[in-house]
Amino acid sequence: MKGMVRFVGAGPGDPDLITVRGLRALQEADVICYDALGVAPELLEGLRAELIYVGKRCGRHSRSQEEINALLVELAQRGLEVVRLKGGDPGVLGRVGEEALALAAEGIPFEIVPGVSSATSAPLSAGIPLTHRGVADSFALATAHRRKGEEGFSIPPYNERTTVVLLMPVRTARAWQAALLRRGYPRELPVAFVSRGATPAQRVLVSTVGAAAADAEAARITAPTLVVIGRVVGLRGRGLRWWNDRDARECAEEPTRVDVLAEARA
Amino acid sequence: MKGMVRFVGAGPGDPDLITVRGLRALQEADVICYDALGVAPELLEGLRAELIYVGKRCGRHSRSQEEINALLVELAQRGLEVVRLKGGDPGVLGRVGEEALALAAEGIPFEIVPGVSSATSAPLSAGIPLTHRGVADSFALATAHRRKGEEGFSIPPYNERTTVVLLMPVRTARAWQAALLRRGYPRELPVAFVSRGATPAQRVLVSTVGAAAADAEAARITAPTLVVIGRVVGLRGRGLRWWNDRDARECAEEPTRVDVLAEARA
Repeated sequence: MKGMVRFVGAGPGDPDLITVRGLRALQEADVICYDALGVAPELLEGLRAELIYVGKRCGRHSRSQEEINALLVELAQRGLEVVRLKGGDPGVLGRVGEEALALAAEGIPFEIVPGVSSATSAPLSAGIPLTHRGVADSFALATAHRRKGEEGFSIPPYNERTTVVLLMPVRTARAWQAALLRRGYPRELPVAFVSRGATPAQRVLVSTVGAAAADAEAARITAPTLVVIGRVVGLRGRGLRWWNDRDARECAEEPTRVDVLAEARA
Repeated sequence: MKGMVRFVGAGPGDPDLITVRGLRALQEADVICYDALGVAPELLEGLRAELIYVGKRCGRHSRSQEEINALLVELAQRGLEVVRLKGGDPGVLGRVGEEALALAAEGIPFEIVPGVSSATSAPLSAGIPLTHRGVADSFALATAHRRKGEEGFSIPPYNERTTVVLLMPVRTARAWQAALLRRGYPRELPVAFVSRGATPAQRVLVSTVGAAAADAEAARITAPTLVVIGRVVGLRGRGLRWWNDRDARECAEEPTRVDVLAEARA
């Protein structure tokens, strides 16, 4: 008897932004393996399933990718219906492929329930659609996270019709800012940092390519954050800011420094 | 008394792939303005809301964007709770910005409920994650639809670590194929056409940059379809094909031509 694994996208961090099918999969599962990153805790309450934390954060026990793969195989081979819950969408930097290939190698059936990616929903909550007629007809998404020994970012050369989204941009801000300038992005092109997007704790900092890293440091932007680069950022200020979010300048811990910064640029 | 408008992403075409919040918005709405494109008909059954079709397809009455904007304003000003239902995600080529700016100009409150974009979920259903460690760390999404007088596509120069997704690629296949070759994409790089992705009618055709347009014509690929370009397409054949979809070569209406094609390339 073999079980199976359903990969489920939890959405961007609000429990109501999981799909109907994803919620049903959680309710029917025997066991749920979840990450901390981006998964709303409310999604895991009141379920009959056994919960197994497999995240790589917060100083808790850290499992390697190989250990996670082996765990999924073992649980399914015990005949269990397993849900592998991931933040956002499993196919957008979610490593669903690695885990699913491990299952396929053992002949274990799997399904993938897509989720709302934070890459698209966090900008929308900040009043920034990634495309807009006459402004942008395309977008590019890349990770700004770098592992040891890696160099560079997959940032395309500047095209005024393409919006760029970078995930995990906080620690590498000076490096990707330099990469943008090298690839022809104008210094005055707007940049928005969206922290905890699509949740009640959403914060937004609007800056420019030329000032992004310094502004993010001054406003003490922390993860989870993504950054949106392009002319669509300007739509937020032209009427599309609808979420009652906190401007990062309003809630920075050192208002004096930030006031000085704002005055200097006014 | 003023009403409000909720923009809701319906997801990629399967009724269970709407979000929990989106489904609730449909149930609570007074009136729902919907497109045909990508919205599962089951989502509109059994609701108390008045349903208004505002799509631009299928030979039915066609409303201009300005007429849709004016309709949303008028309904909200009558004090109604309006849902504007869109296929996929409202922020990915969904024109949410234009409609929301029209509401903002009249002081009408709006909310945006994101959806699962077909741009990410249709590839996953075809066994193709857009990113995969060691293969692709980024993706670019562009429309392949062109309006009268428009030239070119926002396709970035070739980067082996970037997957490219083109929406609405069927009618312009020869043009974007030429654009890919001009921008350095290798002729043998794999290309997947995914038709009606993430629905029971899903069909997939795997081809190459060099053969894409001819293969799509031979297999009679029709809209709605998107195309995925990049090395991640190869993962489908290496164990990630999990959906019981129909290979486009199996179900083409002219098997003889397709058999000849397959033999010629074998």
